[in-house]
Amino acid sequence: MGERTQDTKLDVGVFGATGYTGREVVRLLAGHPRVRVAFTTGTGDGHLPHDAGLERDAQAYLLALPHGVSARFAARLRAERPDAPVIDLSGDLRLRTAAAYREWYGHDHPAPQLLDDVPYGLPEVYRDRIAGARLVANPGCYATSVLLPLVPLLRDRLVEDTDVVVDAKSGTTGAGRAPREDLLFSEVADDFSAYAPGRAHRHVGEMEAVIEERTGRGVALTFCPHLLPVRRGILSALYLKTGAGARAIAQALRRSYDGAPFVRVVDTPPRLSDVVGTNDCRISVHDAAPGRVVVFSALDNLVKGAAGQAVQNLNLALGWPETEGLPVTGRGEAS
Amino acid sequence: MGERTQDTKLDVGVFGATGYTGREVVRLLAGHPRVRVAFTTGTGDGHLPHDAGLERDAQAYLLALPHGVSARFAARLRAERPDAPVIDLSGDLRLRTAAAYREWYGHDHPAPQLLDDVPYGLPEVYRDRIAGARLVANPGCYATSVLLPLVPLLRDRLVEDTDVVVDAKSGTTGAGRAPREDLLFSEVADDFSAYAPGRAHRHVGEMEAVIEERTGRGVALTFCPHLLPVRRGILSALYLKTGAGARAIAQALRRSYDGAPFVRVVDTPPRLSDVVGTNDCRISVHDAAPGRVVVFSALDNLVKGAAGQAVQNLNLALGWPETEGLPVTGRGEAS
Amino acid sequence: MGERTQDTKLDVGVFGATGYTGREVVRLLAGHPRVRVAFTTGTGDGHLPHDAGLERDAQAYLLALPHGVSARFAARLRAERPDAPVIDLSGDLRLRTAAAYREWYGHDHPAPQLLDDVPYGLPEVYRDRIAGARLVANPGCYATSVLLPLVPLLRDRLVEDTDVVVDAKSGTTGAGRAPREDLLFSEVADDFSAYAPGRAHRHVGEMEAVIEERTGRGVALTFCPHLLPVRRGILSALYLKTGAGARAIAQALRRSYDGAPFVRVVDTPPRLSDVVGTNDCRISVHDAAPGRVVVFSALDNLVKGAAGQAVQNLNLALGWPETEGLPVTGRGEAS
Amino acid sequence: MGERTQDTKLDVGVFGATGYTGREVVRLLAGHPRVRVAFTTGTGDGHLPHDAGLERDAQAYLLALPHGVSARFAARLRAERPDAPVIDLSGDLRLRTAAAYREWYGHDHPAPQLLDDVPYGLPEVYRDRIAGARLVANPGCYATSVLLPLVPLLRDRLVEDTDVVVDAKSGTTGAGRAPREDLLFSEVADDFSAYAPGRAHRHVGEMEAVIEERTGRGVALTFCPHLLPVRRGILSALYLKTGAGARAIAQALRRSYDGAPFVRVVDTPPRLSDVVGTNDCRISVHDAAPGRVVVFSALDNLVKGAAGQAVQNLNLALGWPETEGLPVTGRGEAS
Repeated sequence: MGERTQDTKLDVGVFGATGYTGREVVRLLAGHPRVRVAFTTGTGDGHLPHDAGLERDAQAYLLALPHGVSARFAARLRAERPDAPVIDLSGDLRLRTAAAYREWYGHDHPAPQLLDDVPYGLPEVYRDRIAGARLVANPGCYATSVLLPLVPLLRDRLVEDTDVVVDAKSGTTGAGRAPREDLLFSEVADDFSAYAPGRAHRHVGEMEAVIEERTGRGVALTFCPHLLPVRRGILSALYLKTGAGARAIAQALRRSYDGAPFVRVVDTPPRLSDVVGTNDCRISVHDAAPGRVVVFSALDNLVKGAAGQAVQNLNLALGWPETEGLPVTGRGEAS
Repeated sequence: MGERTQDTKLDVGVFGATGYTGREVVRLLAGHPRVRVAFTTGTGDGHLPHDAGLERDAQAYLLALPHGVSARFAARLRAERPDAPVIDLSGDLRLRTAAAYREWYGHDHPAPQLLDDVPYGLPEVYRDRIAGARLVANPGCYATSVLLPLVPLLRDRLVEDTDVVVDAKSGTTGAGRAPREDLLFSEVADDFSAYAPGRAHRHVGEMEAVIEERTGRGVALTFCPHLLPVRRGILSALYLKTGAGARAIAQALRRSYDGAPFVRVVDTPPRLSDVVGTNDCRISVHDAAPGRVVVFSALDNLVKGAAGQAVQNLNLALGWPETEGLPVTGRGEAS
Repeated sequence: MGERTQDTKLDVGVFGATGYTGREVVRLLAGHPRVRVAFTTGTGDGHLPHDAGLERDAQAYLLALPHGVSARFAARLRAERPDAPVIDLSGDLRLRTAAAYREWYGHDHPAPQLLDDVPYGLPEVYRDRIAGARLVANPGCYATSVLLPLVPLLRDRLVEDTDVVVDAKSGTTGAGRAPREDLLFSEVADDFSAYAPGRAHRHVGEMEAVIEERTGRGVALTFCPHLLPVRRGILSALYLKTGAGARAIAQALRRSYDGAPFVRVVDTPPRLSDVVGTNDCRISVHDAAPGRVVVFSALDNLVKGAAGQAVQNLNLALGWPETEGLPVTGRGEAS
Repeated sequence: MGERTQDTKLDVGVFGATGYTGREVVRLLAGHPRVRVAFTTGTGDGHLPHDAGLERDAQAYLLALPHGVSARFAARLRAERPDAPVIDLSGDLRLRTAAAYREWYGHDHPAPQLLDDVPYGLPEVYRDRIAGARLVANPGCYATSVLLPLVPLLRDRLVEDTDVVVDAKSGTTGAGRAPREDLLFSEVADDFSAYAPGRAHRHVGEMEAVIEERTGRGVALTFCPHLLPVRRGILSALYLKTGAGARAIAQALRRSYDGAPFVRVVDTPPRLSDVVGTNDCRISVHDAAPGRVVVFSALDNLVKGAAGQAVQNLNLALGWPETEGLPVTGRGEAS
């Protein structure tokens, strides 16, 4: 940690470093060869209050703040540090209009002027717009798991847009660290259930908007999330109508993600343990009833679904190699 | 436990009492007011070898033996004790033909002559045929969770038969007690994945056959089971096409199961903890994308999905009240 | 549920029916053949506010209220319904003096006049004093697991009092249902740790006072509780100095608990699954280094450690059979 | 991965790479900057049969083979590749005599000639003998957790040797990957129990021998291991008699391990999540009853308790920095 390192590493400020997502951001940045964490904000020893963070110098910022709060900090940072990339991990900047935000989040947008041209930070889909960006809206964890397989298949007209069914399952860290009775170990352990069924979950709005923007197709998703008694990981099952078979669909996905370091199309249904701890999304495709395929998509909600993707976006915004500082190996395999 | 009790209780023999299903059978029978366990077969102290069970007297038999073995014992018992009801919990007698059995189980049927007229032991669907029966094929656990909501909806033409998608999740006891690496705690804990995706699971054949028999409709199911890191419980999500809304579908199910003591249509998505330890199946219905509803169906794979349903079938075969000896209350509620 | 039943069942009021302990009280009473739950207090639909409960008639009361609150209700009920037995499941009435209470609970006792003659509701140790009592202090869950093996061994001078080491492990429901970050699934799952090590846990005071009262010996316990990633169950390991061997110690315990329906001395270390769901305490004894034995003691913290023991105390207070309404069989065995 | 890297990295062969320990060895070596995995033996695709490994060239070997097998391979490698360091992770070389081995392992030692001068690979205790060694006996996981705090305290006469009580708890990966009914998820989940109580566990022999060799004191341990429903991690509680207080004991341990990169003396009881995934052992000391302290010791059974310690030994044997290739950060903290 000599002088030279201090000179050449980029100072990054992390807002909201004490939730599960923020902790994972700090953990990943600690292993990032080009970055130094300049300060963290949050509750507890060793963290600044959020507002104090605005007074501190840094060359880039990651915001892991609650929605409704995060965009205010993003707006301040954009105004006061126009050259510093800001990656916002909240839901505040993911929707395209203030009206859509009000519909899904139930309150007015705190900084609607930001919404116009902030790219949606799914690098495999928006790499062109993220490169060099100074503000990026990091996607939701469920949304990432669904959009990675779905966008290329819809774009290339390989699956129908009339009937997309997604059954998704997430670990508990996706629900955050604030104490809630329904998230107690005594409630979650040995249990399993759906929540926000049908079209009630916020990520539905985010997913449909991205699909329309990137594929030109208007999809009405059926989306049912479930809470798994595990800490980390999302597995989504997409039931898709198609004239093509599983083999052709898989091949198309392989082609789409050729060169994408974090998306792997595999032959057998991915397990959470294949991806937990990594920035990978693993996808498999299987034949079902005639005219249907099922696509499984697995990722770590805290890494590819949040903090890892934020680092990936930071890398792209700064023109660094996309994989810098990001792990790629899960518990399920040796290398 | 004086003379009188011994005189009036029915002697029941349990074959295969040391697996998870067999243990649950014995546990339930121990609390059954009209039954006494006459003997058990299995491995370990206190159990007879299976063949020795055939030499022992009893007035009814429950078979929790492996498929391929169970039908042989059923045939012997039918021949030698024609008056004694036999409830077979294996998969041996669930399909209608020896050809279908060979297709799904990969070997010849051990006693094809039994297949002709054995009723499928789903009491809510086949009550008429189970009453007084002397041989009953107890359904599979997944199949029970799917057929209970699906049969009346297809029969009453409330949902389309062209496109039925089922995403099912089961606890580990459904996979049995024989040691397997993929069922070790070290493998299953903190993990989650699908298996036998598409149409590969044996219960697909069983479900489609029952649907055709009871509704006259030929359905090609899409069915993807998953292994949950919990010991007990199944939650199935059925994605159904329909012109009706969730409210109408729920009402139709309530009407269908009016008077069925173990099926409850509820308003919010059922949790495993609502049903584990009980013989209940809980069902909820929710609107999804236009033209789609999602139906959740939850039960305890060892009770309503196996041992409890077997006792329910025994009760019906003997003309007893259907609920005799069966628990109805889960962890999630006080009464 | 005819007229006759309503006439002959005893009306019981349950205060604090929405925590884990209170729910278990209601669940057990629902299966109790001599009892009807007259009302419940707590938060949420179907429950009275606590104060409203005082206005309602009942013939016995179980209090599953927080310490500091419970004794106030006990005092009111004693004054206004002197004939009705009150079983207090909180810690308020377990210590013998207001000074000891202040030391362990950090605040003044809310009703010190009650402390004089309330029996400690460990039936196997205080059966004489509980029979016919109108107020009973239900013991702590850890305390029950430790005192059941320890009291007879100290009383009969079979183990030394100079050096008693207890390493105890509890499931999460023992910590209650109020939301706390450290009890979130995301924190507890895959984890394990000790807390309140040495002599810091409140039950130390309770245990040492009972030991002194019932054996005449002043013991300074070493007691280290741990939080297990399971919902229910306590396993305590007691490391005891003794000139006797494990076999003699086990035999002495068997003699002490001959006729006690809920204490079983077994040969192999008890598992939580042997006792969860039952009112049993299972104990085993094993030789260790020369002059040491280890005693394992397992129970369900919500049943024998709380609600089941409260029902057992209610039975004794009313002169009913001790086992009335109490389950005795765990998951680990069929009968 | 150019020519230069291939020239300068050391080729390491891993025998038994498909068990939990072997997989962790390969995972750690994959991230080791000075090492390349030359081959692996084991079952399944991509692994050589064990015997074929003997025909392959490498410059160092790690053996994660079953005891009784491992020493035979160690003997062959010592004979045929005398310059190549061999780290044996089995129990075969941990005891000092063939007689002791027969006592604890129940069969004759497969290569007793190796026992004379193989150092016990606990670097913090035997660093002098491991440096430059060509054969190292990697310690057991429980033994590591107990010896790290115990050896310096006994050696410096800070605690008595007459009465050492250890209550230890381990995750399931410590029991290996071979299918066993008692290790099924359905058996372990929601459960907890002791096994091999008193002095029955093999690590007792290993621990007492090391204590005698390194401190000159003959201790008869009381040692009770328990199986936790978690995949990874060991937490041991040591109950020690001492005239000193917790603060003095902690200070002595800090002094002993000043400069040891993987041992940290902390103030609050360590959680498994503090150490899982790292090569750390965390220790805390707390006052208990007069004359007693309790010492907690936590580590990851697969890392510091097995594969990580093996890499640490490899580093020392080769004269490399002790920490090379080893992780130091747990889930419980950001850096």
